[in-house]
Amino acid sequence: MSNFEILYRDSGSAARRGSLTTAHGEVETPAFIPVGTVGAVKGITPRQLEETGADIILANTYHLLLRPGVETIEKLGGLHKLMAWNKPILTDSGGYQIFSLSPLTKINDDGVEFASHVDGAKIYLNAQAATEIQNRLAADIIMCLDQCVPFPCDYSQLKKAVERTIHWAVQCKQAHANNNQLLFAIIQGGINIDLRTYCANELVKLDFDGYAIGGLSVGEGGDNMLETVSHTAPQLPEDKPCYLMGVGTPAEIIAAVKLGVDMFDCVLPTRNGRNAFAFTENGPLRLRNSAHIEDRQPIEPGCDCYCCKNFSRAALRHFFNVKEMLGPILVSLHNLRFYQRLMAKIRKLIEKDEFTNWARKNDY
Amino acid sequence: MSNFEILYRDSGSAARRGSLTTAHGEVETPAFIPVGTVGAVKGITPRQLEETGADIILANTYHLLLRPGVETIEKLGGLHKLMAWNKPILTDSGGYQIFSLSPLTKINDDGVEFASHVDGAKIYLNAQAATEIQNRLAADIIMCLDQCVPFPCDYSQLKKAVERTIHWAVQCKQAHANNNQLLFAIIQGGINIDLRTYCANELVKLDFDGYAIGGLSVGEGGDNMLETVSHTAPQLPEDKPCYLMGVGTPAEIIAAVKLGVDMFDCVLPTRNGRNAFAFTENGPLRLRNSAHIEDRQPIEPGCDCYCCKNFSRAALRHFFNVKEMLGPILVSLHNLRFYQRLMAKIRKLIEKDEFTNWARKNDY
Repeated sequence: MSNFEILYRDSGSAARRGSLTTAHGEVETPAFIPVGTVGAVKGITPRQLEETGADIILANTYHLLLRPGVETIEKLGGLHKLMAWNKPILTDSGGYQIFSLSPLTKINDDGVEFASHVDGAKIYLNAQAATEIQNRLAADIIMCLDQCVPFPCDYSQLKKAVERTIHWAVQCKQAHANNNQLLFAIIQGGINIDLRTYCANELVKLDFDGYAIGGLSVGEGGDNMLETVSHTAPQLPEDKPCYLMGVGTPAEIIAAVKLGVDMFDCVLPTRNGRNAFAFTENGPLRLRNSAHIEDRQPIEPGCDCYCCKNFSRAALRHFFNVKEMLGPILVSLHNLRFYQRLMAKIRKLIEKDEFTNWARKNDY
Repeated sequence: MSNFEILYRDSGSAARRGSLTTAHGEVETPAFIPVGTVGAVKGITPRQLEETGADIILANTYHLLLRPGVETIEKLGGLHKLMAWNKPILTDSGGYQIFSLSPLTKINDDGVEFASHVDGAKIYLNAQAATEIQNRLAADIIMCLDQCVPFPCDYSQLKKAVERTIHWAVQCKQAHANNNQLLFAIIQGGINIDLRTYCANELVKLDFDGYAIGGLSVGEGGDNMLETVSHTAPQLPEDKPCYLMGVGTPAEIIAAVKLGVDMFDCVLPTRNGRNAFAFTENGPLRLRNSAHIEDRQPIEPGCDCYCCKNFSRAALRHFFNVKEMLGPILVSLHNLRFYQRLMAKIRKLIEKDEFTNWARKNDY
């Protein structure tokens, strides 16, 4: 039986409204997944996060592998216990961080050796180990090890990364030993449509629980990103969830939902929140701006988040100005709620078959 | 009619259990007042703070005067609105910060000129201005401008500071123009018992709503501090609240309650919390300690705070280790709850006339 059910379809686009069943509950799709890198969403308690409407959070295998380590997490009763989060968790494979954060990365078809960015310790990871680690971390959704390449990247390197990603996905599927976890494969190929198609077709043959489009939002630009998604998403099975990794802005999410994407993760709500950048339906607010010194409005009038119900823009500006932690905390909270309100709105619009019309008119 | 009612007295000591009525509600005493320096208790939302059991918070006039400024706070609807705190607030007079933070302080009997520690701007403050500023900030309890001296301090300087503090208190009382606010005077005199007695007697003649013992916890040591309190507190009117400023550790608070002190404020719960130092009934825990790497216990078994109900010491240690904001936030939260539980316990023990016995046996 499938873990993913499509409940509604948008008649004007590939958008769909679904529900993904995991060991720790349902994820309503299209879904936005806040990022809890090392086991915490920056500045936000799990209770506050749940109140934003988040169904699921992401944690980074690479970071957790370095600190506090898999064995420690196991001894503490698993990742859910460590994070005090009893709803679904997704762990990435570590691939993206290995290639973006680690110096001294040596890679061949068997696996990858890298140096910890924390203490320089050499660590070897292959598909089997990445899967075993994720089995032990015990998240609800885990990802195959993939090779990420920088942008731009020449064809032969890109092709090699795609072949390795496919090869590793075969090994991850074989190694996967925890039936409580869904295993997703990651499609690579940069912005080369042929390689994306090839990678997607090969991975689909292996029959995963879901498919992710990886290796985007790495500098190729929004148009290239959406162009690539528009060619890749249709290669994936209709009845499996499609997850666009590391994306994105509200406008990018809306555009990708139109193309059939079901899941997103991104650090923007919290990273921007920490920098006094607030999302609103009328575009972003920069709260350090002196225009807000005496601004009694909340960030977004009508928003139901704790920040908007209690604090003026002026108060938030003041907190940033005097470097009080409450500034980053409150704006992150609002941004996370903003993203979840956006996803809830998208889901409702798809249910009523009004999504395409709405998406055409809005300019987030 | 008095704003302060004594409900119970401890038969074995000067401890008393009271209730102070302010424009924003009751403060149950003995009370601990968390410190919200520039309008925020560091890392803690007002809702979280309310859940720790806090009746009242303190904000620093000096800091608010510099940023965001009195006029801005007024335009924003006052300090309660800025801080999103609808319960009692106490503002200090600014005296302590002027003398501890500002370079270039020039003082005479009329007032004090100092340089902002933020931008060096010269600011002049006298008793009338300090009162007017606090009237405009609109906290529920405000403090007379006092002159704080460093420890140690020679007699003539100490004497001069006491005279000025009395002189300014007269002017503050005259200037006070907001009937919704209680005005407290501050007793100075270092650890000189005669000067403390003199200062107390002079200020009591002026009939304030409450009396604070200031200028302690500045390096004189716990024994000197308590010795001074034990001589000063009995000089104060029985029917007025006695507030020991800037104190202290749990043990100091218990000892001072025995001496008849009703109110305390201190940055220890949050400052220590940010440094991974947790208070427990069995003494402090240093959460960075490697002993906690796999420690599945909460900070304090049985504690009802959000941190203890959800996070292991190991998780907290990990958050500090990887510099996640959640570490400081959660340990601050626990420490604030610890202090409020301590005060609630003290109040209950006084009600049952069991405080002295308990205080004798406990060694916080």
